[in-house]
Amino acid sequence: MHRPHVLILGAGFAGLGAAEKLKKAAVDVTLIDKNNYHTFQPLLYQVATNLLDVDIVGSPIRDAVLKQDNLAFHQASISRIDLRNRIAVCAEMEPLSYDYLVIALGAKVNFFGVKGASEYAFPLYTLADATRLKKQILTRFEIADKDPSQIDNGALNFVIVGGGPTGVEISGALASFINHDLINDYPDLAVDRSRIILVDGGTELLRMFKDNSQVYTKNKLEEIGVEVMLGQRVNEITSASVIFQTGEQIKTHTLIWAGGLQASPLVENLGVELAAGNRLPVGPDLLLLGHPNVYVAGDIAMITDGKTAESLPQLGSVAIQAGHHVGESIARQEKGKSVKPFKYRDKGTMATIAKGAAVLQMPHGPTLTGEAAWLSWGAVHLALLGGGGNRASALVKYGFTLFSGKRSSRIIVDEDAE
Amino acid sequence: MHRPHVLILGAGFAGLGAAEKLKKAAVDVTLIDKNNYHTFQPLLYQVATNLLDVDIVGSPIRDAVLKQDNLAFHQASISRIDLRNRIAVCAEMEPLSYDYLVIALGAKVNFFGVKGASEYAFPLYTLADATRLKKQILTRFEIADKDPSQIDNGALNFVIVGGGPTGVEISGALASFINHDLINDYPDLAVDRSRIILVDGGTELLRMFKDNSQVYTKNKLEEIGVEVMLGQRVNEITSASVIFQTGEQIKTHTLIWAGGLQASPLVENLGVELAAGNRLPVGPDLLLLGHPNVYVAGDIAMITDGKTAESLPQLGSVAIQAGHHVGESIARQEKGKSVKPFKYRDKGTMATIAKGAAVLQMPHGPTLTGEAAWLSWGAVHLALLGGGGNRASALVKYGFTLFSGKRSSRIIVDEDAE
Repeated sequence: MHRPHVLILGAGFAGLGAAEKLKKAAVDVTLIDKNNYHTFQPLLYQVATNLLDVDIVGSPIRDAVLKQDNLAFHQASISRIDLRNRIAVCAEMEPLSYDYLVIALGAKVNFFGVKGASEYAFPLYTLADATRLKKQILTRFEIADKDPSQIDNGALNFVIVGGGPTGVEISGALASFINHDLINDYPDLAVDRSRIILVDGGTELLRMFKDNSQVYTKNKLEEIGVEVMLGQRVNEITSASVIFQTGEQIKTHTLIWAGGLQASPLVENLGVELAAGNRLPVGPDLLLLGHPNVYVAGDIAMITDGKTAESLPQLGSVAIQAGHHVGESIARQEKGKSVKPFKYRDKGTMATIAKGAAVLQMPHGPTLTGEAAWLSWGAVHLALLGGGGNRASALVKYGFTLFSGKRSSRIIVDEDAE
Repeated sequence: MHRPHVLILGAGFAGLGAAEKLKKAAVDVTLIDKNNYHTFQPLLYQVATNLLDVDIVGSPIRDAVLKQDNLAFHQASISRIDLRNRIAVCAEMEPLSYDYLVIALGAKVNFFGVKGASEYAFPLYTLADATRLKKQILTRFEIADKDPSQIDNGALNFVIVGGGPTGVEISGALASFINHDLINDYPDLAVDRSRIILVDGGTELLRMFKDNSQVYTKNKLEEIGVEVMLGQRVNEITSASVIFQTGEQIKTHTLIWAGGLQASPLVENLGVELAAGNRLPVGPDLLLLGHPNVYVAGDIAMITDGKTAESLPQLGSVAIQAGHHVGESIARQEKGKSVKPFKYRDKGTMATIAKGAAVLQMPHGPTLTGEAAWLSWGAVHLALLGGGGNRASALVKYGFTLFSGKRSSRIIVDEDAE
């Protein structure tokens, strides 16, 4: 008997979520990702600031796969999806055919055409981004240490563009990394001359949070030494500076781009009209319009909540729930049942600023700030990380790191070196 | 008052050893290394086989430096040493002058002119080497998993050249990694068709060990699945094979070179006649001949034990003791005392083969093999790693890893990727 073949492209929160819900379905599942690891994206900023090791934020996909008998994983880069012939093509394997397709390929950073950004900006969307940024930060300190005149050239200036959760979290973590750790590592260097500048084009940080959280966040960041510049838009990035639309200029070699996402470029040749940010528009059932066997979930999808026309944000929590819904829907289809519309359950949005300082936005409940919000943040992330498998020892280490503030080794391994 | 300036080039075992013994001397010390971390080289093979994390085998030099008030560290690559003008030159800083120079720049792999080796062989001397090799091993399994016909092309064949401690240890560790871990990660792959082949041109493994250790090692390796080929010399390495001088050929994409070292190329323009392997010959006091203020220690030095003309091996234990001797000698010179000749105290040489299996060669005592040797090995290495600073949590993790066999995450982060 032919068992239907479910092909899941992408092993992020959405792809893994879909796979998990197909565990007991009478289907064969193939999961494809260009990496052999799943990335816990909400904590990438902690890899970049040396608080977490790569192997805690990235976990082997095969660890998840081993628990699921009807699933095979392959590490491959999809180059083309052919909806008409129902195949996905990659260079390393025979084309993969499917009965059901789950497109969960995620997004990539969106530089919105800013000149110099693709050459010089440091995005923070992948684990490779995070390790590159960490290496960049440490290398700037080594350079300034050897030649302090480089401080005048902006070697210790770090500019973060984008005042959403990613921008806020990396700014806060960087302040802590520099002012608590690197200051001890470089006793002869004027570390107090380093600057962390968080820039946003709007009038407030954390746009989706309530007013009091926005004010708390700005005050807290300034308290720990982050300069917050609002109403500034970037015009150009060079190897040694950022130039704003006002003509104002800041010397920096490290511009961290937390400015937004666009869908994986694979969607461009699908023959489908794309939504804002090149995202794939889906119906309330998360099916690609006109394709009753093609689901889309995660950052690549433009999902509206059904009640309003507003689209759901590109967050891990949306991706996990959408992935689960897709897996359940395919299981229902296989049993001859109808597919239900997707309903997002907003369990709150958080951003952490410093040890003991965070904001937590509940959809209908109170807004938490400060120590209580930070403890909630810690507990939720420990629980979520733990969900990936039997990673007890890593979590013990992470809990220890989180609450003690003791960091990983500050080493720069250049794999291209001799 | 002018305090004499001691310039130490290289923060390996020898350089750090010298620095440590100058802690209380009335000198200013500058330590230079091209990396910002010290590498615990005896355990590199464990990074390559995923048993240890990069941040345990590499430790921040600044952690050691912070404890020493008279020492400054800079990360820089020395391009030239000018003995006549008493300066060391690097691109990133002003030339560094010195009153005393300690050359402890280590070695690099020696391919002995074998064709294709520099392009295709994987050496194992640096932390970057170890991470590259780990990535290569995991990538071969991913490739074979996608296209099992690649096994016929040698994707799962691993050839190790050199039957000294490095070759023996990486062979044993690789057998354990493949047969205990990767076999579970790739349930659909014929992992049992992988081959590990340890090749040496001589008639036995571990030449410096006694006969019974050599026999034990060969038997133990074969027992855990390593093929041992003696009396075979490599003629050429290609991207997909190794060709021996007999014309015999083995398909492989992963040739691990544990075949020997040559001194850092910086010694070539010193105007000094070099010894075998380009090493710098030193007197019994570890001074460069004709230069009463230039010491040489570690893998870059050709040190004879004074009693015979035989040179001491390029081992961590020799480097540490030589480094200590150099530091003590400079401190003595500064006090107007005479310099003593260096005496190497052989505390034994070890190699580990598998969990519960190792060989331990004492200079005048018994030869240990098996479980007892392995436990000694574990204890000694835990103690040595701990010597580098307050690294308690890393060591707890390492001890746990060592005795439980539980491994780090098997993830491949490609920093060059998008």
